[in-house]
Amino acid sequence: MPVRARPLQAVRWDGRRLAVLDQTLLPHDERWLALEGAADTAAAIRRLAVRGAPNIGVAAAYGLAMELAARPSLGALEEASELLAAARPTAVNLAWAVRRVRAAALRAGPSTLASTARAEAQRIQAEDEAASAAMAAHGADLLAGARTLLTHCNTGALAAGGRGTALAVVAELAERHEGVRVLACETRPLLQGARLTAWELDRLGIPFELIVDGAAAGLLRRGSADAVVVGCDRVAANGDVANKVGTYAHALAARAAGVPFVVAGPTSTIDPATADGDAIAIEERDGDEVLAFGAARPAPGGAAARNPAFDVTPAELVTALVTERGVAAPVHAGTVGRLLDGGGA
Amino acid sequence: MPVRARPLQAVRWDGRRLAVLDQTLLPHDERWLALEGAADTAAAIRRLAVRGAPNIGVAAAYGLAMELAARPSLGALEEASELLAAARPTAVNLAWAVRRVRAAALRAGPSTLASTARAEAQRIQAEDEAASAAMAAHGADLLAGARTLLTHCNTGALAAGGRGTALAVVAELAERHEGVRVLACETRPLLQGARLTAWELDRLGIPFELIVDGAAAGLLRRGSADAVVVGCDRVAANGDVANKVGTYAHALAARAAGVPFVVAGPTSTIDPATADGDAIAIEERDGDEVLAFGAARPAPGGAAARNPAFDVTPAELVTALVTERGVAAPVHAGTVGRLLDGGGA
Repeated sequence: MPVRARPLQAVRWDGRRLAVLDQTLLPHDERWLALEGAADTAAAIRRLAVRGAPNIGVAAAYGLAMELAARPSLGALEEASELLAAARPTAVNLAWAVRRVRAAALRAGPSTLASTARAEAQRIQAEDEAASAAMAAHGADLLAGARTLLTHCNTGALAAGGRGTALAVVAELAERHEGVRVLACETRPLLQGARLTAWELDRLGIPFELIVDGAAAGLLRRGSADAVVVGCDRVAANGDVANKVGTYAHALAARAAGVPFVVAGPTSTIDPATADGDAIAIEERDGDEVLAFGAARPAPGGAAARNPAFDVTPAELVTALVTERGVAAPVHAGTVGRLLDGGGA
Repeated sequence: MPVRARPLQAVRWDGRRLAVLDQTLLPHDERWLALEGAADTAAAIRRLAVRGAPNIGVAAAYGLAMELAARPSLGALEEASELLAAARPTAVNLAWAVRRVRAAALRAGPSTLASTARAEAQRIQAEDEAASAAMAAHGADLLAGARTLLTHCNTGALAAGGRGTALAVVAELAERHEGVRVLACETRPLLQGARLTAWELDRLGIPFELIVDGAAAGLLRRGSADAVVVGCDRVAANGDVANKVGTYAHALAARAAGVPFVVAGPTSTIDPATADGDAIAIEERDGDEVLAFGAARPAPGGAAARNPAFDVTPAELVTALVTERGVAAPVHAGTVGRLLDGGGA
């Protein structure tokens, strides 16, 4: 299966403004949003117009840089940093990227505040793009020969630089050998799998079937996939992984089926300040995301919903953590710490 | 929390015809379908207008009886039995109920073929109603004190006689003590949880929150439910349980969280001729059920979907099997066999 190379980039910097592909409208409508400062960038992150842990870090970095270009003051720096870092609570790349741009700006003099911040944002984006290629290679080495990969949510170019995280591993495998196909979980409530992963796999020319999230465990039990590959929104110091709600059940099912459960993400997703999964704040989003079903509301009027956006998979269920610096396997505080220190486990 | 008793019956026999509440239209539209023979009953079962393992058994029994009232011949008996039993492949109550009516008819003379069949269908329905109350009592004894119950799909009066199977256990608990509430999985693709369980819980006055199916595992891990209670479409001789797709992941998560995973169903759901879960035929339904999202199709045009309607939970993950004859716990060939022989384990 030859893979068509059609580069896709969901976050584009033109030197002055940030353009993001509005992911709430995909796949049927490809519309770009122009962002100009911290407030509209934070709003775009909150409503998931820009999403994916690495990409929201990149967007927030530019959001801060744009704000400083308009208001080059320490007051604006603090205010915008706080606003952006608080846009979503679970992914750590967001706070990490804001911290990096803020630190760079603080090291600069008042006259170079804005240009230093912009340069740091560009550096973050360039690093994230380079990380994708490295993760793809490490992940494909690890999963050499795997044909059917089960994945959750969206972890491609819409979520991160380059070809993404977990989906970059899939694309790399598809380049290396024939027969690669994907079981893509639709990913309720917001259908990032059905809308975004399906759209990317279509563009990549990789065959796929969509499944409801609840079908993954049974299909794994029946031997329908060779591995599970997902991204991550935060990895705790002990290797526990927060990712899109629904991930943990796939990890349990993969373990029960004896199939590798692989997590891919840049080292910026690892948060050494979070001891373990229990310490990760899980974003609770509006119940309406659960109650709405396209334009319809299938539940009776007045029904309430609970909507945690993420869940935590304990490190012992993760076969390998694939980063741009190498692979941690098994995953525990020691191997995760070695990745942060610079090298693979 | 006092529970309002508003009896609901989704399958009604008026002495001549069968009326079923069209469950594809609930909760927004309460429309009754009049069924008159085997062909329209089989069609209603296939398209899930009538659903729930016990209820499709009851409907098929009446479908066969109605066919024999119109065409009282052995040829019609064989033809209609085959048609009805093949309407859906996974639930065993369907084949079991058809077999019972057929056997009764075969024992009758030609002149009493139709009346004997009708009497047997009524007996099946009456037994199913009685079974619900017994299951409710056994299940509530088992889960005494449980407050938050997580459930999947619909297992109430829309799925079985009386107050249903798993949902009857919940209703019984709510009558016995205060504070009972439900986390109801929406149950993709057809949203039996969001549409039907929510509607029934509303009528019962039991508080609930809907969650996406993928949220169940993480919530169980965080201690958000005291037990998982589900129904079943077929129980193999060794205790493996086929139930609505998504169930198996909840069982894995309940085990990991140390929370009871309880399956409720009448003994007619146990199939001694099926050795284990691997021998259960899993119905694969049209991929369009996955691709459709209300009136919208969120995936890109041309996307394919795989749609297994059920999955299998191995017996070792089932804390207890609750039937009208008592409870099997632990669940294995011996305890399941004792239930079939007439008594609890």
